[in-house]
Amino acid sequence: MSLIVAKFGGTSVASPERIKNVAKRLVRMKQEGHQVVAVVSAMGKTTDELVGLANAINANPPARELDRLLSTGEQVSMTLLAMAIEALGYKAMSFTGRQAGIETDGTHNKAKIVKVDNERIESALAEGAIPVIAGFQGIDKNGDITTLGRGGSDTTAVAVAWGIKADVCEIYSDVEGVYTCDPRVVPRAKKLDQISYDDMLELASAGSGVLQSRAVEFARKWNVVIHSRSAFSDAEGTYVKEEPDMEEAVITGIAHDTSEVKVTIRGVPDSTGVAARLFSSLAGNMVSVDMIIQNISLDGYTDISFTCPGADLPRAKETLDRVVGEVNAREYVVDEDIAKVSLVGTGMKSSPGVAAKAFTTLGENQINILAISTSPIRLSVVVDGAQATQAVRCLHTAFGLDSDSVFEEKQLSAEEIAAKMMKGR
Amino acid sequence: MSLIVAKFGGTSVASPERIKNVAKRLVRMKQEGHQVVAVVSAMGKTTDELVGLANAINANPPARELDRLLSTGEQVSMTLLAMAIEALGYKAMSFTGRQAGIETDGTHNKAKIVKVDNERIESALAEGAIPVIAGFQGIDKNGDITTLGRGGSDTTAVAVAWGIKADVCEIYSDVEGVYTCDPRVVPRAKKLDQISYDDMLELASAGSGVLQSRAVEFARKWNVVIHSRSAFSDAEGTYVKEEPDMEEAVITGIAHDTSEVKVTIRGVPDSTGVAARLFSSLAGNMVSVDMIIQNISLDGYTDISFTCPGADLPRAKETLDRVVGEVNAREYVVDEDIAKVSLVGTGMKSSPGVAAKAFTTLGENQINILAISTSPIRLSVVVDGAQATQAVRCLHTAFGLDSDSVFEEKQLSAEEIAAKMMKGR
Repeated sequence: MSLIVAKFGGTSVASPERIKNVAKRLVRMKQEGHQVVAVVSAMGKTTDELVGLANAINANPPARELDRLLSTGEQVSMTLLAMAIEALGYKAMSFTGRQAGIETDGTHNKAKIVKVDNERIESALAEGAIPVIAGFQGIDKNGDITTLGRGGSDTTAVAVAWGIKADVCEIYSDVEGVYTCDPRVVPRAKKLDQISYDDMLELASAGSGVLQSRAVEFARKWNVVIHSRSAFSDAEGTYVKEEPDMEEAVITGIAHDTSEVKVTIRGVPDSTGVAARLFSSLAGNMVSVDMIIQNISLDGYTDISFTCPGADLPRAKETLDRVVGEVNAREYVVDEDIAKVSLVGTGMKSSPGVAAKAFTTLGENQINILAISTSPIRLSVVVDGAQATQAVRCLHTAFGLDSDSVFEEKQLSAEEIAAKMMKGR
Repeated sequence: MSLIVAKFGGTSVASPERIKNVAKRLVRMKQEGHQVVAVVSAMGKTTDELVGLANAINANPPARELDRLLSTGEQVSMTLLAMAIEALGYKAMSFTGRQAGIETDGTHNKAKIVKVDNERIESALAEGAIPVIAGFQGIDKNGDITTLGRGGSDTTAVAVAWGIKADVCEIYSDVEGVYTCDPRVVPRAKKLDQISYDDMLELASAGSGVLQSRAVEFARKWNVVIHSRSAFSDAEGTYVKEEPDMEEAVITGIAHDTSEVKVTIRGVPDSTGVAARLFSSLAGNMVSVDMIIQNISLDGYTDISFTCPGADLPRAKETLDRVVGEVNAREYVVDEDIAKVSLVGTGMKSSPGVAAKAFTTLGENQINILAISTSPIRLSVVVDGAQATQAVRCLHTAFGLDSDSVFEEKQLSAEEIAAKMMKGR
């Protein structure tokens, strides 16, 4: 007898058949005696399609209009899920972000939640209904629809779980939970039973795509227990919560991220203010610089490298085309084929040997480290893209994360997923 | 310098290109010094597609959920139109039915407007923006989204025109205005410059599809001037208003409707209460009986025929399967191939010879009249479906409605319509 918030992503509600399966799952939870609130994303690729429609009409669509356009995606999936639940003979009521009491600031396209007032959700629960809430959206103080940015539905789910004091916020996706590493890269990756908020946050921001880091931050701040699990099976997934019961591991997991690029500026005069000039120009043009490496100076000139998200590369180039000349540097070159590999673990704080062990392991495997950055519970290295898989695998083995069983690597077809879903019912 | 409400139907906003054309038209009105408010339907066949999606999930979708599902169609088109206007450098703001202050009763799927409070529309106009309103939808007193039923966007437009005291409510469609007759049936049909509310209402309810009768009723009640015109040309269309300036014609126009069916019950005992029993059963099962014809009794038995909308036929059959036996009638037969042809004209009230002239004309043309019904300003006859076109044409000629020019009958292709639209800019 728990109070559960269950969030289903776009893949889980991509077709009428899948929506019916989600409805069956929710009804079964209710039959087992739980109270349940559903939060849904837009069906499949709906959000991308709506963005495409907007761009066909206006290359730079006004943010207020774009938000209300995108918000229709979740309004469609929420009503269809409510209809599917009613078709099974159970009462359901859908709620937009506004009706669910999700109040945000006025930053269209990436609004922040400022208040959660779930009164209508609670009265729907009291009436025995299954409330179905549109994720990703809220309303600002002018009554205008806002959206929370990509992956915002996870944040909606956590916020609602907090608002109604749910026992757990279940986040359903097409993976079984949080792994020590991406199982498609390391077949011996282990599913974690539990993970702390801090480790989960580092993994999420280092490229592990299971949970949105913003949702995890919200959960940590308000102490909401997240259960990341598969929409296609009944297996327990991974609990994200404070102070996991298990003994604290030095390394919880390894994330890797191939979305960053490395830019090297060659022949930079080694004089005061030049680096500051470069990086303030980049920051001014909205380039999120991640790591910076400065080589030893030679004859008064040096090379400076930095990494940034691939999405920021056009703005980085635009800035450097202008600034490289102004600071009398020689040229810049871009390397798009790099990977950032991150070891994450709260236990790292009390284990000073982690970096040494990681560097030794990589060296023994002839993997060259291009850049390094650290936090108290994370160690990231940048390596050549071609060596990424090897780097992840040898570190996974070296830090004792390998599982006894091997993950089935093959990609499932839509039919296989559907078959799995039916079996999971 | 007028204040104009301009309503565009689904065909006019069916693609990004067409939405851009509507935006250009609105901007041009603004450039000419008018204040303008747009009302839009959902893009193309969106509403039908959403209904299909709902039915795939629940054969009998709950009305509350269906309304909020359908309302997303207009929310998409309104935001896209607002974006298109902004792309032309003009300020636009979209408004849902709720935000536009359209309050309705709680009858989901065919709600009635109970209050119009266009405060937000007026302040958007005061800020120089072009407000774009989602047609077809409102909100009930519980804050739930309602829809006004098919064609409800016309009603929204008229209600908003009344609410903001607009000079005119322009309703754009793919025809040039209101004709004496459907030009696809009678190539010599004439476009009317003006028509009274009463005549327009009779034409609309007798099958002329240009304007929704509900919108015309609203306009008559609150004295809103409607201008029915083409979205693809600049030509003046037809004004619907009280006391048209033109000399009152005996017959304003001829409508025809092939959507009704005729049911004949044979061998009905000619005794008190039998007809009442039949028709109260039909009414009880939501069958809208239009005309009733009872034959002369023979040996204590008679045949009774009635017409009703084709959509009601399944319920009519269901009722008769039960009741025909209960009243000891012999059997019933259905004729789906009939047409109702209606002569409409306020001048008919003071011209008693209309019926005689109509019957003579039809007789001379060997057209058999299956049923007759009248109102003070309308005369309807039911004829065999195969003779419908001939009936409409000979009546159109007999009552002096033929135009000197011949309407181009051919159906325009999408490209031709687009070309016309571009020319109309």
